[in-house]
Amino acid sequence: MNYQEIISEIYDDLKSTEDSGQVASIIPELAKIDPDQFGVYLTTADNREFGIGEWGTKFSIQSITKVFALSLAYQLVGDRLWKRVDVEPSGSPFNSLVQLETNNGIPRNPFMNAGALVVCDILMGQFENPAEHFLSFIREVASSTGISYSETIANSEKATGYRNIALCNYLKSFGNLENDPDQVLDFYFNICSIEMSCQELSNAFLFLVNDDFRTSENRQVLNMSQAKRVNAIMQTCGFYDESGEFAFRVGLPGKSGVGGGIIAVHPDKYCIAVWSPKLNKKGNSYRGMKFLELFTTKTASSIF
Amino acid sequence: MNYQEIISEIYDDLKSTEDSGQVASIIPELAKIDPDQFGVYLTTADNREFGIGEWGTKFSIQSITKVFALSLAYQLVGDRLWKRVDVEPSGSPFNSLVQLETNNGIPRNPFMNAGALVVCDILMGQFENPAEHFLSFIREVASSTGISYSETIANSEKATGYRNIALCNYLKSFGNLENDPDQVLDFYFNICSIEMSCQELSNAFLFLVNDDFRTSENRQVLNMSQAKRVNAIMQTCGFYDESGEFAFRVGLPGKSGVGGGIIAVHPDKYCIAVWSPKLNKKGNSYRGMKFLELFTTKTASSIF
Amino acid sequence: MNYQEIISEIYDDLKSTEDSGQVASIIPELAKIDPDQFGVYLTTADNREFGIGEWGTKFSIQSITKVFALSLAYQLVGDRLWKRVDVEPSGSPFNSLVQLETNNGIPRNPFMNAGALVVCDILMGQFENPAEHFLSFIREVASSTGISYSETIANSEKATGYRNIALCNYLKSFGNLENDPDQVLDFYFNICSIEMSCQELSNAFLFLVNDDFRTSENRQVLNMSQAKRVNAIMQTCGFYDESGEFAFRVGLPGKSGVGGGIIAVHPDKYCIAVWSPKLNKKGNSYRGMKFLELFTTKTASSIF
Amino acid sequence: MNYQEIISEIYDDLKSTEDSGQVASIIPELAKIDPDQFGVYLTTADNREFGIGEWGTKFSIQSITKVFALSLAYQLVGDRLWKRVDVEPSGSPFNSLVQLETNNGIPRNPFMNAGALVVCDILMGQFENPAEHFLSFIREVASSTGISYSETIANSEKATGYRNIALCNYLKSFGNLENDPDQVLDFYFNICSIEMSCQELSNAFLFLVNDDFRTSENRQVLNMSQAKRVNAIMQTCGFYDESGEFAFRVGLPGKSGVGGGIIAVHPDKYCIAVWSPKLNKKGNSYRGMKFLELFTTKTASSIF
Repeated sequence: MNYQEIISEIYDDLKSTEDSGQVASIIPELAKIDPDQFGVYLTTADNREFGIGEWGTKFSIQSITKVFALSLAYQLVGDRLWKRVDVEPSGSPFNSLVQLETNNGIPRNPFMNAGALVVCDILMGQFENPAEHFLSFIREVASSTGISYSETIANSEKATGYRNIALCNYLKSFGNLENDPDQVLDFYFNICSIEMSCQELSNAFLFLVNDDFRTSENRQVLNMSQAKRVNAIMQTCGFYDESGEFAFRVGLPGKSGVGGGIIAVHPDKYCIAVWSPKLNKKGNSYRGMKFLELFTTKTASSIF
Repeated sequence: MNYQEIISEIYDDLKSTEDSGQVASIIPELAKIDPDQFGVYLTTADNREFGIGEWGTKFSIQSITKVFALSLAYQLVGDRLWKRVDVEPSGSPFNSLVQLETNNGIPRNPFMNAGALVVCDILMGQFENPAEHFLSFIREVASSTGISYSETIANSEKATGYRNIALCNYLKSFGNLENDPDQVLDFYFNICSIEMSCQELSNAFLFLVNDDFRTSENRQVLNMSQAKRVNAIMQTCGFYDESGEFAFRVGLPGKSGVGGGIIAVHPDKYCIAVWSPKLNKKGNSYRGMKFLELFTTKTASSIF
Repeated sequence: MNYQEIISEIYDDLKSTEDSGQVASIIPELAKIDPDQFGVYLTTADNREFGIGEWGTKFSIQSITKVFALSLAYQLVGDRLWKRVDVEPSGSPFNSLVQLETNNGIPRNPFMNAGALVVCDILMGQFENPAEHFLSFIREVASSTGISYSETIANSEKATGYRNIALCNYLKSFGNLENDPDQVLDFYFNICSIEMSCQELSNAFLFLVNDDFRTSENRQVLNMSQAKRVNAIMQTCGFYDESGEFAFRVGLPGKSGVGGGIIAVHPDKYCIAVWSPKLNKKGNSYRGMKFLELFTTKTASSIF
Repeated sequence: MNYQEIISEIYDDLKSTEDSGQVASIIPELAKIDPDQFGVYLTTADNREFGIGEWGTKFSIQSITKVFALSLAYQLVGDRLWKRVDVEPSGSPFNSLVQLETNNGIPRNPFMNAGALVVCDILMGQFENPAEHFLSFIREVASSTGISYSETIANSEKATGYRNIALCNYLKSFGNLENDPDQVLDFYFNICSIEMSCQELSNAFLFLVNDDFRTSENRQVLNMSQAKRVNAIMQTCGFYDESGEFAFRVGLPGKSGVGGGIIAVHPDKYCIAVWSPKLNKKGNSYRGMKFLELFTTKTASSIF
């Protein structure tokens, strides 16, 4: 069976069973989406591509953006990055603020909100206009000029993101933020609001698959060692309090977003983007998780 | 360069630099060991073997035993296991007792002491004489009859293991233990006291490398899916609060013990056992961690 | 209205309204008691006595014993006591074990189980036969030879007290216990099993009311400063996570037990013992709390 | 010895011994103060007044303002107040944010910053111009028109108060704040910036001593039951993580501020204000704590 057959079969399977997830309610604007959309896109190391369902529809990538932010910061400042953010799983969905207290303001990993805010702060120190630069970076990596911020989504988060405001000011109180908290939050809400399709995401993540990946501008995003390390962090920290479960069931490095997207990477073989807005209790796409579990089982392609 | 040259080169390198670790002090008997011993053994999927240093000397495998216990319990009770223990990283070296409070007595993973005690409790429900049976299992998997418990080490732990006694009674108070806490502890201290050489360990872990692994009695230890899942848990939870760091630096599933041993597994390629008694601040072998980081870098064999 | 009229009126009032508490289930033997018993006894500074209901029936004083243990230890070792146990409220009913981690084995106060275990350990260092001596002390303070341990209750706790076993071994692991944990637990379960009537309790606590209190053997229990300090600790820590509420509603130093007893002390004026087995959600006697709130309101005798 | 002799003697005593405290550094503006100032003022229930040292110098009352805010809110909304803030001691100086997580946004007491912010939010719902009204209230209670906000101090807090900004937005994320977090913070920083002398403070707190206290406008601040309850909360929660210690050593309800002020109340007898800027490790005035301990010992006037 080839990839197209496999993804089609799993897709049909899941389409015909109930989706018991819930659309995210914490960002009001996200709740307006059609919850039954479902798309999948697979890009292989040798540039074959396969899609099924709404793979061309753009959606809010949300926390998946943290992988782009981390990668760009890693490219720019190298291992100095790890003085301000650790690489350990966090242990609890609720302990973001608690955790900062016990670790004196060092977020446990760059995929917790606190860690991503520190990464944003680092990026802001590198560019005159970080929002513009960040968007250029993603467009280049994804080879797609049609990627943009969603002002509506960003504003929706700004208006209701009290917990993130709390987190950002808390980081500042520990001295682990150089810029003004309000400006860091602005940048953070912006990069989370980026909208991409499964196809764009899947193509963009090839830099974590192919050691010799070059962007459309013929630039390397990360060297091999760096790419492996970003994959390692995705493996141990990519799914909040379900990271262990994802390693256990799917067996690939990956990252989810509250918009219902998941990207998973098989180093050497492929990357795959899945999108379905309804989330399970841990905040990850219900159908997305199911799809990927079935996919690595059928293809026997867990990295473990 | 072949494997023998690579491990020899790294070995010589580390031998000539200072070992800034500390021998474990929590088990008095362990502190009596010669701290400068250092051994490495590599077994490949196609049964080639390579050793350097004290690869034939037996040492206390301590927490590495948890992988054997988990695998045997998984073989025997299957996925029912996960009702009593979770598969998520724990987030903190200190939160074993805290964590049980917030999770109502369900340990976060089978490699925390609390989780291993639950696994012991499960094994005790399967056998008349669990200690005898467990030893037979390890001897069979390692194809070595010379493996035994160390009564001295087990007694040393019993005499000073107040925190484990606390943990075990705490589990019992939540109802997540069927047997008497004292008997569970006895069994637990016993299986931690097993002594094996790097060679024995490396050979024993082949069941997590080869899908068609058979013991000397021609038995399968785990099916492919189960083996992958045990590897996944080692990846996310095998090094306490340094699990993220190990994934980041080494990029292999593995498990450490306070006796200074580390086993690491490359699914499909090899397993490797390293032993050096001095531990870093997180309680993992200082030289062992360094060795494995250099090894996966030189062989470009991180799974990420 | 005199004291007899006041306690009778409140008693009748509460007898005619529903008791929505629940008998303690954590000690099986305690659950066998007739849950509708209700007794009150008041002893004034000038030795007038007033009782209503089952004031003469003995019941398991449980944690109230901690005040006797603290007072005896304070008498014997003075302020050295505070090196091993603090005097701060604990903040949470559930954090006994957590709290020990953050405070390196120093219990926050002598009325948490952990703190009482440390006090027991101190008493054991003072006597050949601490259990015998402790009983003599209580009999002398209460001027009653009919007070005894309940072997049945003590054994019931020993058989099911896994959480206390955990706590005690945890303390030992921090080095804040000189004796063997099993022996400390034995002594602790014994002193908690003491049975006294409201009359005996109320008379016994006069040493925290009258500055010149003398026992039947003409001995002072505590000097004035010490008595005030024990009262202060009862005020801030006497009711677990309801200590603030008790100060707020009743306004007297006091101590409750899971057997349904409460003792409250008005320094200078009186002490009062109330007993009713059904407990509220925080583990304190439902009717006992109500009674005392109404009593200090009617007599305008809150210390605040 | 009369009160004047007693306070003079203790004052001289402490003046001649070293003050090992440290001036608060968290609010830059506060650090500019002369650290050796020391004032005491005592007002009795029968309106006798006694002062020593810098009793007439105004200082930043900081958290002492929380008692005024609580009292005014209690007067205005009565027991509805307790639906939004609890009355239990907090257990730890560091757990303000942690605590909100475990209690779903209900602060444990009105003297933690989180609780005081909720009280501010309640006051803001009562007045067109809460800042103006609050100042009038304090002036009336203290019978002094010369009391004002310090814009310098308030601005200094605003510019550096990241932790309070975090806390306030965190409360908002739980829905326990009706107003805009920025406006609540503005009001909060304002009321903390009020400057009063020991004399003004001591006179102002008479409403917690005398049951029939009337302001200069002949108004009652709180009824007897309410006053007793505010005293009870001060007793159990008035000194952060040193509340138990204060009850133990001093034995009076009281409240401290990071500006070095402490107010203590003996219900029925007196209130006393002490001010000395250097703080002990728990953040309470070093000399203030010492003074009050000696004072209640010499006058044997602990309430216990």
